[in-house]
Amino acid sequence: MSDAGTPVPTGSRPPDGFFFEDFAVGQRFGHATPRTITAGDCALYIGLTGARQPVHCAEPVARALGHPSCPVDDLLVFHLGFGKTVNDISYNAIANLGYAGLRFHEPVYVGDTLKSQTQVIGLKQNSNGKGGVVYVASRALNQHGRVVLDLARWVMVSKRNAAAPAPATVVPELPREVAVADLAVPKFLKPGALDLVATGGARLWDDYKAGETIDHPGGMTLEESDHMMATRLYQITSHIHFDAFRALSNQFGKRLIYGGHVISTGRALSHDGLENAFQIAAINGGTHANPTFAGDTLYCRHVVLDRMALPGRDDIGALRLRMLVAKNVTLAQLPAIAPGEKNGSVVLDLDYTVLIPRRQKP
Amino acid sequence: MSDAGTPVPTGSRPPDGFFFEDFAVGQRFGHATPRTITAGDCALYIGLTGARQPVHCAEPVARALGHPSCPVDDLLVFHLGFGKTVNDISYNAIANLGYAGLRFHEPVYVGDTLKSQTQVIGLKQNSNGKGGVVYVASRALNQHGRVVLDLARWVMVSKRNAAAPAPATVVPELPREVAVADLAVPKFLKPGALDLVATGGARLWDDYKAGETIDHPGGMTLEESDHMMATRLYQITSHIHFDAFRALSNQFGKRLIYGGHVISTGRALSHDGLENAFQIAAINGGTHANPTFAGDTLYCRHVVLDRMALPGRDDIGALRLRMLVAKNVTLAQLPAIAPGEKNGSVVLDLDYTVLIPRRQKP
Amino acid sequence: MSDAGTPVPTGSRPPDGFFFEDFAVGQRFGHATPRTITAGDCALYIGLTGARQPVHCAEPVARALGHPSCPVDDLLVFHLGFGKTVNDISYNAIANLGYAGLRFHEPVYVGDTLKSQTQVIGLKQNSNGKGGVVYVASRALNQHGRVVLDLARWVMVSKRNAAAPAPATVVPELPREVAVADLAVPKFLKPGALDLVATGGARLWDDYKAGETIDHPGGMTLEESDHMMATRLYQITSHIHFDAFRALSNQFGKRLIYGGHVISTGRALSHDGLENAFQIAAINGGTHANPTFAGDTLYCRHVVLDRMALPGRDDIGALRLRMLVAKNVTLAQLPAIAPGEKNGSVVLDLDYTVLIPRRQKP
Repeated sequence: MSDAGTPVPTGSRPPDGFFFEDFAVGQRFGHATPRTITAGDCALYIGLTGARQPVHCAEPVARALGHPSCPVDDLLVFHLGFGKTVNDISYNAIANLGYAGLRFHEPVYVGDTLKSQTQVIGLKQNSNGKGGVVYVASRALNQHGRVVLDLARWVMVSKRNAAAPAPATVVPELPREVAVADLAVPKFLKPGALDLVATGGARLWDDYKAGETIDHPGGMTLEESDHMMATRLYQITSHIHFDAFRALSNQFGKRLIYGGHVISTGRALSHDGLENAFQIAAINGGTHANPTFAGDTLYCRHVVLDRMALPGRDDIGALRLRMLVAKNVTLAQLPAIAPGEKNGSVVLDLDYTVLIPRRQKP
Repeated sequence: MSDAGTPVPTGSRPPDGFFFEDFAVGQRFGHATPRTITAGDCALYIGLTGARQPVHCAEPVARALGHPSCPVDDLLVFHLGFGKTVNDISYNAIANLGYAGLRFHEPVYVGDTLKSQTQVIGLKQNSNGKGGVVYVASRALNQHGRVVLDLARWVMVSKRNAAAPAPATVVPELPREVAVADLAVPKFLKPGALDLVATGGARLWDDYKAGETIDHPGGMTLEESDHMMATRLYQITSHIHFDAFRALSNQFGKRLIYGGHVISTGRALSHDGLENAFQIAAINGGTHANPTFAGDTLYCRHVVLDRMALPGRDDIGALRLRMLVAKNVTLAQLPAIAPGEKNGSVVLDLDYTVLIPRRQKP
Repeated sequence: MSDAGTPVPTGSRPPDGFFFEDFAVGQRFGHATPRTITAGDCALYIGLTGARQPVHCAEPVARALGHPSCPVDDLLVFHLGFGKTVNDISYNAIANLGYAGLRFHEPVYVGDTLKSQTQVIGLKQNSNGKGGVVYVASRALNQHGRVVLDLARWVMVSKRNAAAPAPATVVPELPREVAVADLAVPKFLKPGALDLVATGGARLWDDYKAGETIDHPGGMTLEESDHMMATRLYQITSHIHFDAFRALSNQFGKRLIYGGHVISTGRALSHDGLENAFQIAAINGGTHANPTFAGDTLYCRHVVLDRMALPGRDDIGALRLRMLVAKNVTLAQLPAIAPGEKNGSVVLDLDYTVLIPRRQKP
C-alpha cells in the first residue's frame, strides 16, 4: 500500500457509512478500534470454532517451535485485522467479491495491539448504475508499526444516490497467488520440533500429493448466537449479520453469516487430515460461493493444489490448498468440483497456502 | 451507605431467597461471590455486546489517556457489581422499578476484585398486600476497600406469606440526578490524548447540543444464548432469565432478558455517533419500560439532555444523555418520546452522564 | 495406569476414528491437543455454566486458603483432561456407560498445560456382534509430568465391520468408590480461612446429615449454542454434539448434549445449598440416565450419601453426594429415586465426593 493519496479525515464517515460514490482511487483510511489481543480472545476463538491446532493453545508446543509463547491463530488475526476495515469499506456492501494476495508477515502474540489501514486501488461502477466495485489494499500493523497482514479485496457497494456520476474506471492488476518467495517463514522456527503426538497426525509435507482430495470427517451446525458472537468479538459492524428485523426485507429474509466464520469453521474441521499444517502463510484468493445461514451444517473438503519447497529451508515446506466448504450435504455424495465450477451446496471455495514440516533426513 | 444497622448473618438466606417480609430498614448485606476481573471477562463482554470503545480494548489508547492499562468497561463493572446484589435483594423481584444516583468512583482494571454490599433504605407494602417495594443503597468495592460504584435502586418484591404484617412505610428521598460536582474524573486523565482515529469519530464535547437527537444506525437481534451467557458471566441468578420451563407459567410464557444486557446493547450500538464519550460517569435514573425477549431486535436513539462543564477542567466535559432503546421498529418511524411518555416499542429509557474530551484551544 | 503395553503410533488414527475392533487390551494412547489453561477459559466456563464458587473466581478468597492464585474449576479440568481422550476412545461411541475411580490429585492453575493419556484395560463384545464395551484408564498430566486427574470409564463403541472377530473378553475390576484415604487434600490448604460471606452459605461439614435431600432452587434451560460452545472449548470432537444434519438420521433425530455439560450445570445450580463444598475430590461413579437436548430445562437435587472425616485433619471433611439432574419437571413433584432406579425425567445420577470445611472448635 502506497503512502500517497489524501488521508480521509477522521470523522468524515457518514452515520450510515460510505457508499460507492464516496470512494476515490488513492483515498486512504485509518480504521477505528485498534485491538489488544488477549488470552480471552483466544479462548473464545476456540469456543466458537473448535480449533485444535496445539501451536495456538499449548505453550510447550509453541515454545518447542521457537515461539516465545503461543502465536495467535492466523485466522483470528485475519478476522481482527480485516474486521476493522468493514465499518469504512464494506458497511454498505452488496457482496464481498473476492480476496487476493493475503500474506501473514509475522506472528502475533497475546498482548500485541493491531490496527488497520486501507487504500482504495480501484473503482468500477456497475452497468445498472446502482452501485459499483471498490478495490482496496488493506493491512494490519502491530504496536511496533510492523505489518502483520496485508491483502487486497474487492466488494460491491451500493450507491446512496443512483444519479451520482460514475468515477473513472480503474481495475487494478491483482496477483493470482502469493509467490513462494514471498511466503514469510520466521527465521527462528524449528519445524522439526513439532510434537506429532500433540497435533494428533503423522503426515508431513512429504506425504501429501498434488491432486489429492481429503474429505474431513466432522460437521458443524452453525447457530445465530455463534456467528453473531464471533462477529461481535471481531468488532465487525455489518448489519446483515446482526439485524433480523431489517433482514426481513432482504432477498433472503434473514441474517447472513459472516464469511470469515465459515473459513474458520472449515479450518477447524480440517484439523483431522491436516494436523501438522500449523500455519497459514497466505490466502491466494477465494469466493463465498453461496450464502450461509444459521441452521446450516458445514462440512469441509480439501484438494491439494501444489506442494512447494521453500527457498533455503529443508525443514519446512508449503502446501497450496483448495478448501471447499459445503453445507447440508454428505461429502461422499458431493462430486468433484472443477475450479470455478458452481455447486449449490458449496459456500466457500478458498485457495490458500499453509506451512508444514518436512520429514527430516536421518 | 451508612455502616449502622444490623448485619444480616451469613447463611440466613432462605433457599428460595428473601421475600418482602424478610427485609427491614437498616438491614445490611455482604453479598456472595466476589469476583476478580480477568482478560477473559473483558473479551467475552465484547463478544456478547459488540462494544467498540478503544479505551477498553486497546492498551496504547488507554495508556495515552494516563491509565496503566485498559480500564474495564464501565458497564461490565456495573453488571458485576450490581449482579452480586441480585441473589439477596431481587431474587423474588416482580419488577425492577428504577435506579438513582449511580456513580462510578474510580477505574477498575484487569486483576481487580470486586465485592458488593447493600443496605435497605426504604420499604413500602403494595396496597394489594401481596408484595412491596424495597429501596436499597448498594456499592461495589475493590480489593483495596475503595468504592468503585454505588447506586440506589428500588424493586417490587413478592411476599412469601400475604398475611405477614406490613412494615412501617419508609420512602427515601433519592436524587433525581448526580450533580456535576459529584462526577469522578481521575486526576491523571489526559483527555486531549484520546486518539480520534482509534475511536472513529471527530465530534467532541463542543460539538453536541442540548436537545439534539441521534438515531444510531445499527441494530442487534438478541438470542437466548447471548443474554443467558451474559447474565451467567455476571453470576446473576434470577430464574426469570434462565428457566424456560418455569417461565411457561409466567405472564409472558417465556424468559425475560436481563435489563442490563439491554443497556449494554444500547451502549454498543451508540458507538457510531458517540465515539468519544469514552466513560460513563453516572446513571441518573432509568426505566425498563417494556420487557425484552429473545428474538427482539434492538435499536438505539440518544437525546442530549444537557452539556455541562466540569469544575477545574477545561479539557473534558460531561454530556447528560437520554438513551432510548426500542425494539422491532425502524427508528425513522419512531416518534419523539416525551420524558415519562410510554411507547410500546421502547424497552429502555435511561438518563445518564458521560465524559467526553473538549476541543483544545490552539 | 501401567506403563507396559504397546504404544499406539502417532497418526495411526483412521480418519473416521477407532472402532471396537481397533482396540486391544494393554494398548496405550497419547492424546492430541495439549492445552494451556488461560483466564479466558475460566471466564468462558463461568459464562457457560453460571458457576459461582468464589475459590475459582476471586483471588483473595483463593489466597486465603493457601493457593497462589485461583485454582481452575475442577470440572473444567475434568472436561479438558477427559475431552482429549474422546477423539481416540469414544469418537464412535454408541453410549458412555460409566465412570469409576475419578480422582483430582492436585490443583491446576491458569498457565498450567494439560495433556492426556489412556490405556485400554478391558474389552467385551456385545452379544449382537455389532459393537462392544471398551474399558479404559485415562489420566491428565500437567507440564511437570504430574498426574492431576485420573479415572476409569467404559463406553460402548461400534464395530466398523461386524464380521471382525471378537477379542477375548476382559472385564476389569473397577472400584465402586474412591476410598477416603485416597482423597487428595493439599497440605497447604487452610479450610478455616474460607470466607463464608464470599461463598454465601454458613453450612459446614458438621451441618450436613447422611440421607439428607437438598432440592436446589434454580433451573437452567440449555441452548444449542451453549452446549456446543462448551464442548468446542474442551476440544471434544464427537459429531453427535455438533452435526444436526447427520443427527437427522440418529434415533433422536437431533443433536445430544455432552454429558459433561449436564454435570457442570448441576454443579452450578447446586451452589445454593452446597456453598462451602468448594472442591470436588473424586467422582465415584455415574450414569447419564437419559439424553439431554437443547431446549431442556435442568434442575438439580442432591442426596447426602455419607459424611466422612479425613485422616489427620480436623479442619476439613468430605461429603459423599449423589447428584440427580432432572429435566422439565418441578423438583417438588419428583419422587425420591432409589439407587439404581430409573426415572424418565432424570438425566444424570452422579456419585461423587466433595471437600468442605469443618466447624472449628473455639
